[in-house]
Amino acid sequence: MTHDTRSRMIHGAALLVGTRGAKSTTLRDLAREADVPFGSTYHYFPDGKRQLVSEAVATAGDRVDLLIERAREQGPDAAIDAIANGWRSVLESTDFRSGCPVLAVALEEDAVLRESAVRIFDGWQRSLTAALQDGGVDADRAPRLARTVVAAIEGAVALCRAEHSFAPLDDVLEELRATLAGATSP
Amino acid sequence: MTHDTRSRMIHGAALLVGTRGAKSTTLRDLAREADVPFGSTYHYFPDGKRQLVSEAVATAGDRVDLLIERAREQGPDAAIDAIANGWRSVLESTDFRSGCPVLAVALEEDAVLRESAVRIFDGWQRSLTAALQDGGVDADRAPRLARTVVAAIEGAVALCRAEHSFAPLDDVLEELRATLAGATSP
Repeated sequence: MTHDTRSRMIHGAALLVGTRGAKSTTLRDLAREADVPFGSTYHYFPDGKRQLVSEAVATAGDRVDLLIERAREQGPDAAIDAIANGWRSVLESTDFRSGCPVLAVALEEDAVLRESAVRIFDGWQRSLTAALQDGGVDADRAPRLARTVVAAIEGAVALCRAEHSFAPLDDVLEELRATLAGATSP
Repeated sequence: MTHDTRSRMIHGAALLVGTRGAKSTTLRDLAREADVPFGSTYHYFPDGKRQLVSEAVATAGDRVDLLIERAREQGPDAAIDAIANGWRSVLESTDFRSGCPVLAVALEEDAVLRESAVRIFDGWQRSLTAALQDGGVDADRAPRLARTVVAAIEGAVALCRAEHSFAPLDDVLEELRATLAGATSP
C-alpha cells in the first residue's frame, strides 16, 4: 500500500509537471493530483517537492529508455516509434494537456532538475544511437541522427499539445522514417 | 519616444516569455525587463499583460515569417536556416536562457494565446511549404516536411537551452539538410 501510494504520487507528478512544469506546481498540487493527504507527502518524499519531481522525471526517463531497449531488436524504426509511443499515450490519456515532463524541467530555471533532464536526453540518445548502428547507420552519423530524433519528437509532442491533434507527431515520424531509410541504404 | 518604449516592451516581453512562459510572468516583471515605470504600462497596453504578451508573440512570429520569405529565393536550405537563425540569435544574446516565446505560450493553459501560437506555427509551415515546393519537393510531401522542420527546430532550441550548447541545433540542421536533399533528388 505504501509502495502504491508512492508510485501513484510519482505517476501523478509526471503528468502534472508535463502539463505545467515544476515551477508553478506546488507539493500541495502534487498531493491533490495523487489523492494523497498533504500531511503524508513528507513521509514518502522527505526532501519535498524537488525530490518528488526529480523521481517523477527520472521514472519517465527510465520508462522511455526501456521502451527503446525493448524495441531495439525489432530494428531502428521500432526504436524511433518507441519514443513517440511513450508520449502518444500521455497525450491521449490527458486529452493533450500533458506532454513530456523531461522537456518541461529542461526549460526551467532549477539547474539541478535541468541537468537531470540533460542526462536523461543523453541516455535516450545513447540507446537510440546503438539501435541506429545495429540497423546499419554509420557510426559517425548515428549520434547526430539520434539527437535529431529526440529533438523532432519532443518538438512534435509540443506541437500536438498546442494543436490538440496527433498530426504533428504522425508527420514527423513519417519524415524520420524517410531519413532513416536514406541513412541505411547502401 | 513613445514608439520606442512600446517596441522595447514588446522585445523584452518576447525574451521573458521565451525564458519562463507567460503564466509565471507578471506585467510588473515585463515593465521591469523593459525598464519602463509600471504605472505607464497600461498607457501602452490598455488591456494589460495579455495584450503585451500577445503582441510580443505575434511580433516574434512575424519576424521569423519575414526571415523565411526573404531566404526563400535562395532556396529551401536557406529557408530552413532562416528559422534556425531566428532562434540562434536569441539563444546567443541571452546565454541560452531564452528561446522561442511562441512555443512557450503553445504549452500553457491560456487558450487564446495557445491558439495564436498555433496560427503562427501554421504561417511558418505555409511559408516553408512554398519554399520547399520552389526547391523541388513534391506538393504531397512539402507540408509534412515543413511541419517536421518546425518541430525539429523547436525541439532543438529547447535542447540547446537545456544543454547550454548549440550542438543540438547544429545536428538537427545537418540532418534536415540530408532529408531535404533526399526529398529533392530526382
